[in-house]
Amino acid sequence: MRRTVFDDDHEAFRATVRDLLAREVAPVFPEWEKAGAAPRDFYRLLGKLGILGMQVPEEYGGGGQRSFKFNVVVNEELARAQLGLGPIRVHTDIVLPYLLRYADDEQRRRWLPGVASGGLMTAIAMTEPGTGSDLAGIATTAVRDGDHYVLNGAKTFITGAVNADLVLVVARTSPAREDDRRAGLSILVVETASEGFTVGRNLEKIGLKAQDTAELAFADVRVPVENLLGEEGRAFDHLRHNLAQERLSIAVNAQASAAGAVELTVDYVRERDVFGKPLSAFQNTKFTLAECATEVEAGQALLDRALEEHDAGGLSAADAAKVKLFCTEMQSRVVDKCLQLHGGYGYVLEYPIARLYGDARVTRIYGGTSEVMKSIIAKSIGL
Amino acid sequence: MRRTVFDDDHEAFRATVRDLLAREVAPVFPEWEKAGAAPRDFYRLLGKLGILGMQVPEEYGGGGQRSFKFNVVVNEELARAQLGLGPIRVHTDIVLPYLLRYADDEQRRRWLPGVASGGLMTAIAMTEPGTGSDLAGIATTAVRDGDHYVLNGAKTFITGAVNADLVLVVARTSPAREDDRRAGLSILVVETASEGFTVGRNLEKIGLKAQDTAELAFADVRVPVENLLGEEGRAFDHLRHNLAQERLSIAVNAQASAAGAVELTVDYVRERDVFGKPLSAFQNTKFTLAECATEVEAGQALLDRALEEHDAGGLSAADAAKVKLFCTEMQSRVVDKCLQLHGGYGYVLEYPIARLYGDARVTRIYGGTSEVMKSIIAKSIGL
Amino acid sequence: MRRTVFDDDHEAFRATVRDLLAREVAPVFPEWEKAGAAPRDFYRLLGKLGILGMQVPEEYGGGGQRSFKFNVVVNEELARAQLGLGPIRVHTDIVLPYLLRYADDEQRRRWLPGVASGGLMTAIAMTEPGTGSDLAGIATTAVRDGDHYVLNGAKTFITGAVNADLVLVVARTSPAREDDRRAGLSILVVETASEGFTVGRNLEKIGLKAQDTAELAFADVRVPVENLLGEEGRAFDHLRHNLAQERLSIAVNAQASAAGAVELTVDYVRERDVFGKPLSAFQNTKFTLAECATEVEAGQALLDRALEEHDAGGLSAADAAKVKLFCTEMQSRVVDKCLQLHGGYGYVLEYPIARLYGDARVTRIYGGTSEVMKSIIAKSIGL
Amino acid sequence: MRRTVFDDDHEAFRATVRDLLAREVAPVFPEWEKAGAAPRDFYRLLGKLGILGMQVPEEYGGGGQRSFKFNVVVNEELARAQLGLGPIRVHTDIVLPYLLRYADDEQRRRWLPGVASGGLMTAIAMTEPGTGSDLAGIATTAVRDGDHYVLNGAKTFITGAVNADLVLVVARTSPAREDDRRAGLSILVVETASEGFTVGRNLEKIGLKAQDTAELAFADVRVPVENLLGEEGRAFDHLRHNLAQERLSIAVNAQASAAGAVELTVDYVRERDVFGKPLSAFQNTKFTLAECATEVEAGQALLDRALEEHDAGGLSAADAAKVKLFCTEMQSRVVDKCLQLHGGYGYVLEYPIARLYGDARVTRIYGGTSEVMKSIIAKSIGL
Repeated sequence: MRRTVFDDDHEAFRATVRDLLAREVAPVFPEWEKAGAAPRDFYRLLGKLGILGMQVPEEYGGGGQRSFKFNVVVNEELARAQLGLGPIRVHTDIVLPYLLRYADDEQRRRWLPGVASGGLMTAIAMTEPGTGSDLAGIATTAVRDGDHYVLNGAKTFITGAVNADLVLVVARTSPAREDDRRAGLSILVVETASEGFTVGRNLEKIGLKAQDTAELAFADVRVPVENLLGEEGRAFDHLRHNLAQERLSIAVNAQASAAGAVELTVDYVRERDVFGKPLSAFQNTKFTLAECATEVEAGQALLDRALEEHDAGGLSAADAAKVKLFCTEMQSRVVDKCLQLHGGYGYVLEYPIARLYGDARVTRIYGGTSEVMKSIIAKSIGL
Repeated sequence: MRRTVFDDDHEAFRATVRDLLAREVAPVFPEWEKAGAAPRDFYRLLGKLGILGMQVPEEYGGGGQRSFKFNVVVNEELARAQLGLGPIRVHTDIVLPYLLRYADDEQRRRWLPGVASGGLMTAIAMTEPGTGSDLAGIATTAVRDGDHYVLNGAKTFITGAVNADLVLVVARTSPAREDDRRAGLSILVVETASEGFTVGRNLEKIGLKAQDTAELAFADVRVPVENLLGEEGRAFDHLRHNLAQERLSIAVNAQASAAGAVELTVDYVRERDVFGKPLSAFQNTKFTLAECATEVEAGQALLDRALEEHDAGGLSAADAAKVKLFCTEMQSRVVDKCLQLHGGYGYVLEYPIARLYGDARVTRIYGGTSEVMKSIIAKSIGL
Repeated sequence: MRRTVFDDDHEAFRATVRDLLAREVAPVFPEWEKAGAAPRDFYRLLGKLGILGMQVPEEYGGGGQRSFKFNVVVNEELARAQLGLGPIRVHTDIVLPYLLRYADDEQRRRWLPGVASGGLMTAIAMTEPGTGSDLAGIATTAVRDGDHYVLNGAKTFITGAVNADLVLVVARTSPAREDDRRAGLSILVVETASEGFTVGRNLEKIGLKAQDTAELAFADVRVPVENLLGEEGRAFDHLRHNLAQERLSIAVNAQASAAGAVELTVDYVRERDVFGKPLSAFQNTKFTLAECATEVEAGQALLDRALEEHDAGGLSAADAAKVKLFCTEMQSRVVDKCLQLHGGYGYVLEYPIARLYGDARVTRIYGGTSEVMKSIIAKSIGL
Repeated sequence: MRRTVFDDDHEAFRATVRDLLAREVAPVFPEWEKAGAAPRDFYRLLGKLGILGMQVPEEYGGGGQRSFKFNVVVNEELARAQLGLGPIRVHTDIVLPYLLRYADDEQRRRWLPGVASGGLMTAIAMTEPGTGSDLAGIATTAVRDGDHYVLNGAKTFITGAVNADLVLVVARTSPAREDDRRAGLSILVVETASEGFTVGRNLEKIGLKAQDTAELAFADVRVPVENLLGEEGRAFDHLRHNLAQERLSIAVNAQASAAGAVELTVDYVRERDVFGKPLSAFQNTKFTLAECATEVEAGQALLDRALEEHDAGGLSAADAAKVKLFCTEMQSRVVDKCLQLHGGYGYVLEYPIARLYGDARVTRIYGGTSEVMKSIIAKSIGL
């Protein structure tokens, strides 16, 4: 069915982004995969073209858009072109909203122009070795010493750390309390150039080869108190406010990947002959792709409905959880079926479907696992 | 998420319908199940309350509504109350559109007032023993004899035949042709009181016990030529025009049943204790219902998007097929999981979930099987 | 693959049973379905033919077989012929083992001859309204009064109650204890002819129409102390000993039903034409039935391995749980797919697949739900 | 349940193999993964220890075993240790049977000692770019020229090509015939050192990183007529004879991988804490692993039954297809669920489950896709 969420401005923006990706990214992407990350300059280019700062207020050099839909366009175009570049989404969909909501005037002046231009790339560091989705277990400490916090600890699974200039680090500024597991955590905006700040191994993953996922270590890193984001001790509350958008962002990516997988597989089965006729002539091929197209249509309707709710300011945490759960689980089913239709070629990385398969496996996990989504949804229906 | 397809008029109408069903139908429904059909008077009551004729033009005593959404409201309320009364849907969602589109002025005057008032209940007879969804295989013949057609043959799986006054019968008015399997079929509006017209066995089904599904037999039934609907020989074309709405109607029913199943199961698991605590306290219960709620949300978004397209006149056959496929397959998965959470009670017919289970099994079959839907969808994506 | 579990004696016995069912049962089964139970005489006939007493020692008029495989043969033949007659399995596979293990000499002399001859039909009553699989919640009491227990309470979901002469009732002979939820329960063998013993409603179910499932009520029923089976207060331990066989028995039934569903569907699709060719010529039909045949083969291999282990005395509770879980879940998947291939006919009860569908839905529930099976299995692997 | 297919000899052999893999392979495997293949010497070591030649007759330096079970032991131990070393299976399970069946005495003397010792490693080349599982489409030609065939063409997806000394190449020795798509193909045993024989790119795959999968090109390669295996023009028939074992070999691998995945995940969830308690304490964890353990048990029973049939000489093509279909599809489900329980760590290649996931995706494809298996099975049941 027709999508009704985008207007002409979005589509013009889409054309720009699509063109950029086809011209500047696709040809060199295999090199980025080998390198394990995109080059630093790429993000400056994105900034220059206005792609990073669509939601940054105009006074700070951004596009001044309130709608999330421009981010969606970028996300969709990346996914359709099979370009796993998660650091862009982290920067625009996840980190920027925290800055927009919690940064004070001085901080906005200090950081937002760079966020928009790509001069200050960002990442966010919550997970620690051994904690997973459970924030209350955070062991990284930030101890006040004069007008600095002294940061010690380690983080893992940090997307975009290799090119980041600023990392939002969630750290414990006062000890855990028995009666309130959520108390005592704060968000510090840490410059990666600080002494004692180390970017560790870039983890080797099943897919997403051009997207760095690193470990971080902090050894007596001195962070000025002016870099506290929001209120001390209230990280838990603060972080909660953007969870819906973070999950929506993952769902957008999953949905577009699934849709793209169906498209390229339809093309593949029409061209490929087996046992003397096109693969597309077999009923199993037709039925399998019809099932996939149907699931993709359902995901799109659900997602688009959520995008409207989100822009209207009303997407609840539970609804975002439903959207993430549905779109990512659906993506896994669809990409798997599409790969199978490719036969042996589906297992070879030079075929896009193989890369989509490797990339897809993490969406049911990051940003809160499917199991965490189910817990949130269950609670919302009174269970 | 909030639904955005209904306005205040729809909701007022919904209140009327819900109230009627609770007061007049629910208490006596078990008797209707035993009888195998609702009583004839019930349809007259529906007519009197304006429920049957919402889409009949005002000049014929109807509500004059063009929107399909009032029908949707009736359908949803029936499903939510676990009342399987398919003859209503056949009358308003399937037969009426053919009359509105193909009946000439004289026919409109003759039939539409009764359709609106419930004085003329309708059914439609396409399937024959042995043909299934394949119209081209129809063997019932209508041979012209003066100003009558003489009808001979048999039909099966006819919903609502027991109470019907008029049946739209698809019959062969000229022999099948090798070069065009679709040629030679016509639609005759046959009065059930005609001589030679027999309503046969009311088939015993897995569910839908209060909804009659009968066989029909025609032995030299004389049908006046004035009862030809649309053009002779063009039944295939005519019938195609309402397939999208027919399938949408089934999807609405399936969706509302699934949503209702989740609601009643949430209530059930909160009240029921096992192993010393409420069933709702088990993680498996929470996760299972969260999965169900998510699928229901996706189905609703897909369906509501389709309802808007349909009212705007643009729902394609392929999109309707996707909606039917998704909503009915989803209904089966959801109702099955909800039943399982009821344990042994889920298998006992006095529990609503058991009835929903029996009713659900046919939605993947009638109105075109899931396999037929997949064929249609595959063709639409170039396979 | 060839099955290797049966020898010539089993196959000869199978021929007898198959012949009996075809001649004496199949023709009248629809009447039994309407009546809600088989007639009392039928069980006497089974007894006379030696079918009920294969495992009863010869001195009490039985076949003296130790192997469970003769029971398996009966169970398989019933399932293959789509005859849901659960009371037979309750009598031979579930109740008899308790009598053989816990009845003292006097009790053996009193009861076993009737069990073998069909003169004393049996049932077992554990579940109460509201307790499900949780024995510790049993509220029925048996208070010692001289040389009798006085029994009060109610049971539900009792298979075979209509024709039963003896019911093994699990009742509380001493109050529940905080420190041991399992203490205080005993097994009483209650004559259904006792004063105060009432067989209540025969519950209407989704399927298994010829198999009665009733409620029982006990109002000051006086049960002689000689009818205590095993030790007072140790019902929990006693019942545990036959759980593996009870579940195996359900798995045998589920497996044979699934195998039968595939067989009859293969026949159906070869005979039925759609769109001008046999349904069997469509790739979807071939693939769907190939999937079903594969699942059936896996279930059979698993089950047959378990039958050997069981006869060798070593089938653990966890292994029995795996077999029940796999075979019953598989049965549901297979029967559902087979029904779908029947199109509209699959929904009509005169087609065997429709009955298999209705019958199948309870096997994942009774004898311990799939969820209970998973709990047992999880515990066995250290979780 | 206990497995009953192995005796003490097998278990002693298993201990040897397991020890070898732990000592000689596991520590250096990451290097082999980087290199894209195991080193040549490793295969000589396997030969020296008698592992490659268990089925080679003693007169040629082998173990003289007729049973396939020793191969199964090697296969299982590789899978349990997460070592994807497909060239071993190709050598012992796929190529050797062709040599044993079709090699004449001179050829046996020439090749079998090297096969047993690891001095002559083998591979087999059927698939060509664009043909997939369809042998009749083979375009590689072998034209007779005096006492040589002159070989021209290309092959792809050749496992073990990097270290192979001999490759069984299926080539067209006479043109394709309209009336018999299978005619005109022959098997040539080609020395990889021959002039004009090129091993092309080692394809990058989703998983199986230490297992080379290469393209081959033949440019006027002269192959002595003494290297024709079996009869000229009968490759199709010859190849068919070992398909059951080839598929059984894949099933053994899939089954052992799935079993291994469950084992290591059970360990993982017992050690890992989330939200303040062990992951193993959550009902979802318990139920998920119980489902996995059940599927693994079913796969094992099916596979072990097939191993007995195979050793007894009677495993049909259709039964082998069922076993491959079930075990590989089950492997995918199980490994996916186990990965999910690992959360983010499951996506990082240093965790074994991530490697199992990448390796698993090809088993539903190679050796005949699941779709090919279904076609074979369908034919066997008369469809």
